Amino acid sequence: MPIATRAFAATASDQPLSPYSFERRDPGPDDVAIAIKYSGVCHSDLHIAKNDLGGTRYPIVPGHEIAGVVTAVGANVTRFKEGDRVGVGCMVDSCRTCPACVEGEEQYCVPGMTQTYGSPDPKGAPVGQTITQGGYSDAIVVDQNYVLRIPDSLPLDAAAPLLCAGITTWSPLREWKVGPGSKVAVIGLGGLGHMAVKLAAALGAEVTVLSTSDRKKADAERMGAKYFLINSDKDAMKAAAEKFDLIINTVSATHEIASHVQLLARDGTMVMLGLTTEGLPVFALPLLRRRRRIAGSLIGGIRETQEMLDFCAEHGIACDIELIAPDRINEAYERMEKSDVRYRFVLDMEKLAA
Amino acid sequence: MPIATRAFAATASDQPLSPYSFERRDPGPDDVAIAIKYSGVCHSDLHIAKNDLGGTRYPIVPGHEIAGVVTAVGANVTRFKEGDRVGVGCMVDSCRTCPACVEGEEQYCVPGMTQTYGSPDPKGAPVGQTITQGGYSDAIVVDQNYVLRIPDSLPLDAAAPLLCAGITTWSPLREWKVGPGSKVAVIGLGGLGHMAVKLAAALGAEVTVLSTSDRKKADAERMGAKYFLINSDKDAMKAAAEKFDLIINTVSATHEIASHVQLLARDGTMVMLGLTTEGLPVFALPLLRRRRRIAGSLIGGIRETQEMLDFCAEHGIACDIELIAPDRINEAYERMEKSDVRYRFVLDMEKLAA
Repeated sequence: MPIATRAFAATASDQPLSPYSFERRDPGPDDVAIAIKYSGVCHSDLHIAKNDLGGTRYPIVPGHEIAGVVTAVGANVTRFKEGDRVGVGCMVDSCRTCPACVEGEEQYCVPGMTQTYGSPDPKGAPVGQTITQGGYSDAIVVDQNYVLRIPDSLPLDAAAPLLCAGITTWSPLREWKVGPGSKVAVIGLGGLGHMAVKLAAALGAEVTVLSTSDRKKADAERMGAKYFLINSDKDAMKAAAEKFDLIINTVSATHEIASHVQLLARDGTMVMLGLTTEGLPVFALPLLRRRRRIAGSLIGGIRETQEMLDFCAEHGIACDIELIAPDRINEAYERMEKSDVRYRFVLDMEKLAA
Repeated sequence: MPIATRAFAATASDQPLSPYSFERRDPGPDDVAIAIKYSGVCHSDLHIAKNDLGGTRYPIVPGHEIAGVVTAVGANVTRFKEGDRVGVGCMVDSCRTCPACVEGEEQYCVPGMTQTYGSPDPKGAPVGQTITQGGYSDAIVVDQNYVLRIPDSLPLDAAAPLLCAGITTWSPLREWKVGPGSKVAVIGLGGLGHMAVKLAAALGAEVTVLSTSDRKKADAERMGAKYFLINSDKDAMKAAAEKFDLIINTVSATHEIASHVQLLARDGTMVMLGLTTEGLPVFALPLLRRRRRIAGSLIGGIRETQEMLDFCAEHGIACDIELIAPDRINEAYERMEKSDVRYRFVLDMEKLAA
């Protein structure tokens, strides 16, 4: 039976999000039905709600940092049962046959993953859905292969943002083999950045935070950063030249990266995680002089996401959150645009007005 | 005894190169004295002669693709003897103690390598030299640790450019582990590009050349390229999307790289070898979508240069050259600025006027 679902949706680029009701599909044999308890608020949600990248189809229910409890499972579902604590991240399906999917890197699915919201929904027709709808809602139905297990020791609310902010920073830390002895810098201490600091420190790296002011210095140190640099301080930047093996760049606004590239050691990599839309000027000489690299990285695969959740449970890591009622989402967006959140808003979906 | 040396030097940024005489140092106990037979002409020579990057000190004798014969060795020299066929590339010394030097990556020497020409010359004082002077000359004196052995099967003239064009393309092919099954694209079929094609093909890769026209298509195929793409052909570029594991970008003029990044497969790398001076706009999304990378690479270490020379000998690879008398160097520069050379000018130093 289709599942009546209450949500908050964007209905146009210039309108606030508002209450919205729709139906989720009747769970099929491979599906897991989930009562959403918490939904993290990612900067991408805001971009899509406001159509910053173009192509948004309205109405759209954002949200891809989902934590909840299983309410029903299909006949073929073996990995989950009613009552399990589970999560859903940025994708709810992929082709499963391309090399990326076969290697467990579903985020790089060649025909393209089915994103948790805003993708064509191949299974939505029976309930009149043409696109997928996300986590600012009280229920979701997802194929078991795209559902994650949230370990018991992790609080559900603070675990929700791990499904995007956590895995997006975990994946490059693993890809670039961060561990004891690594020197890692994190540019920007926001939703992604604060997770990068916690995860890199827990992996044994020496972590430095680069920020535009020292407002968050105490937070950074509490999260595991050993050093804190203000990136307008030319002397400090000069002293840090050639220091880092990996720079996790979480800034999603257009910004100057040349002076940060100079901080990379020989063979060091700056990983861009933010979806800046303008071209960022890159100079050849600093890359050549030390065989430096600039790379991108996009969330992470399902297996890697489970690995991250298990690592977080083992190391007692979760997100620093501000828990709010869903009807405060528009205020949250306003504050996010001013980087005024420590460090992730999470919607308490049980507070949806009846 | 100091060695009287005849050469061609640049004396000012707006003057043609002209005959110049100076003295090389008396060979010390670790030195090898070399009669230069051939000197390749690299685009960097032209940049320095014309002070394109600023900081050129005149008079300057360019040339860092040197092939010749040993005429004398110092008392401590064990690796070379009179009559040996040898080469000298872009560096004649480095600190030998920093991590890069210890790892045999002297080109990334932390205090900085001593470049073959234009670097402060710590050993030049007795003969009045304050900067190092390069290969457009009939003799050079170099510490044995920075001298390469040129295998007997390689012709000296066509081997000379291997000391820069060869190693500069070899090093990234090795760093990014090119071998059978690799798909490699080479942007620009010039001095560097034609060596990248030959070396990548000999390593077993499937090689594609990207060029602005099909003028050099037959040459590219003869050198081992399987495919040839004109990079203004939008359909062809679209068909090649996500194809390459490695793109060797040899273009040294400001150019558009965004459309080329799209040709990289997941986890593929574009290596920049050209010393462009302006910032090249790089977009985050194409990097994120496939975890692509953009990197720089600078020549190669001494051990790796010897490996490259031995590989070339084993595979019968050398440069395609135009051998000219040294007094035609200014004409050669003019033609190089129009990319009118197939594929490297080499100065025949025995043709220096007496």
